[in-house]
Amino acid sequence: MPDILDAARRALLGRPERSERLHAALLPKRVALPVFASDALSSVAYAPDEIFLTLALAGVTAVTISPWVGLAVVVVLLTVVASYRQNVRAYPSGGGDYEVVTTNLGPRAGVAAGAALLVDYVLTVAVSASAGAHYFGASIPWLHGRETWFAVGIIVVITLVNLRGIRESGRGFALATYAFMLGAGLVAVVGAVRHLTGTLGQAESAAFEIVPQAGLDQGLVGLAGGLLVLRAFASGCAALTGVEAISNGVPNFREPKARNAATTLGLLGAIGASLLASIILLAGATGVRYVEDPATQLRLDGAPPPADYRQVPVLGQLARTVFDGAPWLAVAVTVVTGLILVLAANTAFNGFPVLGSVLARDGYLPRQLHTRGDRLVFSNGILTLGAAAVGLVLAFDASVTRLIQLYIVGVFVSFTLSQLGMVRHWTRELRTEPVARERARMARARVVNAIGLGMTGTVLVVVLVTKFAHGAWITLLAMLAVGGVMVWVQRYYARVNRLLAIDDDPAESRALPSRVHAIVLVSRLHKPTLRAVAYARASRPSVLEAVTVGLDDDEVRELLERWEALDLPVPLKVLDSPYRELARPFVGYVRSIRRAGPRDVVVVYVPEYAVRRWWERLLHNQSTLRIKMQLAFVPGVIVAAVPYQRD
Amino acid sequence: MPDILDAARRALLGRPERSERLHAALLPKRVALPVFASDALSSVAYAPDEIFLTLALAGVTAVTISPWVGLAVVVVLLTVVASYRQNVRAYPSGGGDYEVVTTNLGPRAGVAAGAALLVDYVLTVAVSASAGAHYFGASIPWLHGRETWFAVGIIVVITLVNLRGIRESGRGFALATYAFMLGAGLVAVVGAVRHLTGTLGQAESAAFEIVPQAGLDQGLVGLAGGLLVLRAFASGCAALTGVEAISNGVPNFREPKARNAATTLGLLGAIGASLLASIILLAGATGVRYVEDPATQLRLDGAPPPADYRQVPVLGQLARTVFDGAPWLAVAVTVVTGLILVLAANTAFNGFPVLGSVLARDGYLPRQLHTRGDRLVFSNGILTLGAAAVGLVLAFDASVTRLIQLYIVGVFVSFTLSQLGMVRHWTRELRTEPVARERARMARARVVNAIGLGMTGTVLVVVLVTKFAHGAWITLLAMLAVGGVMVWVQRYYARVNRLLAIDDDPAESRALPSRVHAIVLVSRLHKPTLRAVAYARASRPSVLEAVTVGLDDDEVRELLERWEALDLPVPLKVLDSPYRELARPFVGYVRSIRRAGPRDVVVVYVPEYAVRRWWERLLHNQSTLRIKMQLAFVPGVIVAAVPYQRD
Repeated sequence: MPDILDAARRALLGRPERSERLHAALLPKRVALPVFASDALSSVAYAPDEIFLTLALAGVTAVTISPWVGLAVVVVLLTVVASYRQNVRAYPSGGGDYEVVTTNLGPRAGVAAGAALLVDYVLTVAVSASAGAHYFGASIPWLHGRETWFAVGIIVVITLVNLRGIRESGRGFALATYAFMLGAGLVAVVGAVRHLTGTLGQAESAAFEIVPQAGLDQGLVGLAGGLLVLRAFASGCAALTGVEAISNGVPNFREPKARNAATTLGLLGAIGASLLASIILLAGATGVRYVEDPATQLRLDGAPPPADYRQVPVLGQLARTVFDGAPWLAVAVTVVTGLILVLAANTAFNGFPVLGSVLARDGYLPRQLHTRGDRLVFSNGILTLGAAAVGLVLAFDASVTRLIQLYIVGVFVSFTLSQLGMVRHWTRELRTEPVARERARMARARVVNAIGLGMTGTVLVVVLVTKFAHGAWITLLAMLAVGGVMVWVQRYYARVNRLLAIDDDPAESRALPSRVHAIVLVSRLHKPTLRAVAYARASRPSVLEAVTVGLDDDEVRELLERWEALDLPVPLKVLDSPYRELARPFVGYVRSIRRAGPRDVVVVYVPEYAVRRWWERLLHNQSTLRIKMQLAFVPGVIVAAVPYQRD
Repeated sequence: MPDILDAARRALLGRPERSERLHAALLPKRVALPVFASDALSSVAYAPDEIFLTLALAGVTAVTISPWVGLAVVVVLLTVVASYRQNVRAYPSGGGDYEVVTTNLGPRAGVAAGAALLVDYVLTVAVSASAGAHYFGASIPWLHGRETWFAVGIIVVITLVNLRGIRESGRGFALATYAFMLGAGLVAVVGAVRHLTGTLGQAESAAFEIVPQAGLDQGLVGLAGGLLVLRAFASGCAALTGVEAISNGVPNFREPKARNAATTLGLLGAIGASLLASIILLAGATGVRYVEDPATQLRLDGAPPPADYRQVPVLGQLARTVFDGAPWLAVAVTVVTGLILVLAANTAFNGFPVLGSVLARDGYLPRQLHTRGDRLVFSNGILTLGAAAVGLVLAFDASVTRLIQLYIVGVFVSFTLSQLGMVRHWTRELRTEPVARERARMARARVVNAIGLGMTGTVLVVVLVTKFAHGAWITLLAMLAVGGVMVWVQRYYARVNRLLAIDDDPAESRALPSRVHAIVLVSRLHKPTLRAVAYARASRPSVLEAVTVGLDDDEVRELLERWEALDLPVPLKVLDSPYRELARPFVGYVRSIRRAGPRDVVVVYVPEYAVRRWWERLLHNQSTLRIKMQLAFVPGVIVAAVPYQRD
């Protein structure tokens, strides 16, 4: 079996790489920017949509305040980027938020941050793949209505690409991210120029009226209106998602890691903020309409849009309007946007396994997550992430709007915890730092992080208030569940490690058993049995006997006769089995031998046919499997499998 | 883990029984009749429906020939019963059709018969449970529309009951079968008396007109009409299903097994034929209408039946008409009919595991099917049957009409093969029998079987012609697949057995390895490792060393230091792992030792933590699992698991 699996893995994942190549997999800035920034940058492809869509619930006039909401989001974005530049410098080891929080706020808060981050990574993949599928759907009619399965396909492909290793993915993805920056940048610049020269037209959807939701038909007035603005702001904060990805990925940067990461983060903040601002302003200028459900919310001369009307994402609508003379350019922008969204999911695939490995190292997750696979990556973590994201996409039918409600809360939980941790970090550092210049730098950094804390904390409260019923509760529940599992795994490992730790008195644990009682389990008389007998004899035990369980009188008689005929110097004992069981009488016999000589070791030699394919398992060794499982619970018994290989 | 599973099994299935109780599980005739006859008898609850439903495709007048179709079915039924009485007498060992065919027509035909029977058993369960669910649905409004899940539930319950053992089921089911005979008998007798006295009314459905199918609106004329009559006859032959059940169940009868079984079979034939005839005649007399799709095929004054119209099975309609003064009696008849159908599925649960065990004994099926479970039953076979039947019910949405198309063809394949085998049997016996009286008896038996052969062969052709496109092809495909697997399994076992057979020269296979090279696999230094070292030392190997795979330099250094500190008389060797793998370097090292000393045995001691629950597996022993799997393919290596039990 392993050979086939191995061949399949090689074909899918490529050849294994040596540890020494680990450093070669480190990323220069020009590759790191697209790899780690694609998440944060790509969110400008869906964050404006969420702002427009939420405000649209109160009608067309409400949408006009979108620039103010956008401005608030940009301020938060720049603040958070500034804060995270401090994080990256202070903690360059890649534990990211988890490390910051654990070190400064203690392991309990660390578990909370770890759980939030794990959940976030899954949501990043789900949201990005879903949004990407919808952007592609806007350009490729065949995809319309098949977005869910397309999103699932995207995740599967990214999972495979990442199992192949980080370098290839970094290289392959850089081009696409730069293409997106170019495309979105062109839309922004050309749009601005055309707007200023008065040649910018109206979006196709500008002709639609928007039907306000019941209770909001008076526009943004009263408590309901205020809450809606807050909700739009909270939704827009989806633009911040992905900023933390770099702080978890610092070890993947080239030296000087921290500085390179901070520079990349700054670049990313500047680019992201400009793109976000341009898109929102241009969308306002061109009268773009974007709603949750076009059929019920849009009206053209009082009638709903035609049945074949397909709502295009905001950036796509802008591209069509700005490049109305060159439709191929608009299609190109939509496609590269779809592409960068797809690749944004890849950011999580860089961060999740690293975090999983760190958590596994600290004992919060199963140990196998700590092991690097043979492609220099943490294969198990990658597989877990892919599977969870596919599950989410299927559960939420690839709806970006619904997934975003879940996404933001997790992001801001870790933002807030991380900033709180950083404030504590600087406070502690300041306590011991004697150099005045350093102290001043630290104090400045603390102010930045404190502002970040205030900002992210406020947003978290806003998000919780406005989003709780819309899905945030699911994220909180998931974080609670993940955190619970982490605590439980950690306690479990701690308990087992205590149990298995070597006592102070090593003599006890080194006491040798007095004798070895060897038993060969015989079910039939064939070559594997003879080999097991020969090997058992070679180990020269104090007592050696062959034991069979009598299920059928005729078979037992024949077996005994043939055993006699072979003239082996090993007696064959037949155990009675009144219930026609194999395992119970045999295990009972082994127990009785242990009772007779508690200081003896019993070695049970089990002849086994080495099956090569999984289905052969169904035809062989089924009864011995049960015996082996039960013998594991008899103290002082060694189960020695003697495989017989077919030539 | 085993303890929990065990407790659950005990709770569901009861305590294990001793082999000696096997004879106590044999059935007296009064219990055997209901257990084995329920299948054949219960088919009168759906066979008439299929006749009426098929004829109704050509309109109301076509239905009037139903008595003639019924008569033909009764003739075939009685012939087949007479033939099978010969089978039972000649082959009382319970191999049934499979044994008859294998002995007389050779193993290839035996495989065909075995495959047909296995498929039939599954279909018996599916058809009976589905029909039963519909009878219950006719009395219990809540079940309407939930028949599929109810049928699945029925199968699950029967599976559990049968895992508990045959005796309890036999006893519990006898009452219900007798109740059905009483109920259906009452309908027949009271109906006949009322008909003769002129007090029998018309069925509720008699008021409906039947819309003939396109092409059949001229009634039963031409080729189409002729084919429809043949199709109705083929469908009616569903009444014969289950007759063969007794011939497979002969070993479950009390002595004299063969005579008791033959008597039971005769009784069953007489009862079944009378019930079938009465139901068809009374349904004609009361003008019962029964169609495949009431909404499109029934018309009342030109309009389709009301939306809440629910078509009741023929026997149910009869009971309502015959007992029009006592509706509770009609409900009782419907319920006991549903009950006997449910219990009919049980017949297959008696026959299938026996046949599976016989086939496994002959090497056609995986060996574990040959083993009796600890409740005197063949648990694996029962589970397989239940799962397959549930699958069919779900796939065909519990539609009796669609399942019957699949059912009949399999039944008549085994009928025909079996009768052909019997004719050969008597011909061979006659060749050697000297006593004239015996010869005369055998010749008579041969005539009976030859008539049976002619009859079943003809029906098989009719079934194939009329049912092929309606689903018979699925059964043929399934039989082909099952037969293919059987042949393949048999060849596989034969090849492996040849490979593993002990050669003529026993000296070679008894050659002792010269030395034992013991290796303790060390991943961490804890109690399980020390125990493994101690046990390895106790076996006094020629060479003993501890080996660890170096994944992390710091960890290796710490491990070496602690190993030194313990002052064990065993050297610890560190293997380099450039690809951060555990398995490959270790297995490579073991191979190199084998190459250095090809006549040595290598024993690899693997310390293991004995996990008690399945989820603990996820947290332990994952890496050693892979090593063990790969070592199974290195010749001359024993893998000795040294479990460490938590107290």
